[in-house]
Amino acid sequence: MQPSSSRDVFRGRLLRLTVEKWPGGEREVVHHPGAAAMVPLDGDDVVLVRQLREAIRSDTLEIPAGILDVPGESPEECAVRELREEAGYGAHGVERLGFVHPSPGFSDERIDIFSCRAERVGDPEEGVEVVPMRFSHALQAIQEGRITDGKTVAGLLLAAQRGR
Amino acid sequence: MQPSSSRDVFRGRLLRLTVEKWPGGEREVVHHPGAAAMVPLDGDDVVLVRQLREAIRSDTLEIPAGILDVPGESPEECAVRELREEAGYGAHGVERLGFVHPSPGFSDERIDIFSCRAERVGDPEEGVEVVPMRFSHALQAIQEGRITDGKTVAGLLLAAQRGR
Repeated sequence: MQPSSSRDVFRGRLLRLTVEKWPGGEREVVHHPGAAAMVPLDGDDVVLVRQLREAIRSDTLEIPAGILDVPGESPEECAVRELREEAGYGAHGVERLGFVHPSPGFSDERIDIFSCRAERVGDPEEGVEVVPMRFSHALQAIQEGRITDGKTVAGLLLAAQRGR
Repeated sequence: MQPSSSRDVFRGRLLRLTVEKWPGGEREVVHHPGAAAMVPLDGDDVVLVRQLREAIRSDTLEIPAGILDVPGESPEECAVRELREEAGYGAHGVERLGFVHPSPGFSDERIDIFSCRAERVGDPEEGVEVVPMRFSHALQAIQEGRITDGKTVAGLLLAAQRGR
């Protein structure tokens, strides 16, 4: 399934934007390399990261995640690497929770989500604050609008459904 | 909190893309008008819609939703209107479930999510198939990767947490 025509209107370092002709009309489409995220469980805690998200002019509480930008690396390997690099935690017993399309109305981005038992092995990345939080408090933070990142909401609720 | 400089690289009908300078480096940011979505409950069913999502070259099963493109309309009014226009259902007893930022790494999009008791009052929009589904089956469909739209995963799991 492909558009009848497509023209690039922007090519950046992360994103490519096309304007495409489809039977339903013209579509503006953001092409994204995809990402992988980890729900890191440490006893009763989930290990979250707080960082500035310039696009929304605010910081966020999120599960560790990263863009699929290493050739040949699987989403699972990417999620494990990002947990190590971003938060300074190692992963054991990785399980796949599923995947989401965050914004299928205008973007092809797909995020694969995993969970693991996490163990602190080093320091977080510069600009990233590690926030271990009781899993039950994190679910409460979603209800209260203190966690709003889509992949984090999906990941935590998927992990809760599995009984963590 | 604003970038030290910003230049428009694309202005479309839906999206605006800027390249911005921040202390952490250059950021490509997709500016989106925002959206509102509804988890419509009809007895034991949730009313989903199936439609083509050109950006991911596939159709999706989603909760009804729409872009905030009517001046002066609140997110709740938008969600109620989209349920009516897209699926042909009326809304009773609307409740707010929360909001998500689907992709805060590169987009300012925010989606407000509501739930309601829904009642069929007309026909769906052209190109949209209405799919009533047992709520428990919809949760199963998330686990099995048959529902992957981020706002739908968030909305259904938020509604499940509230005991629907």
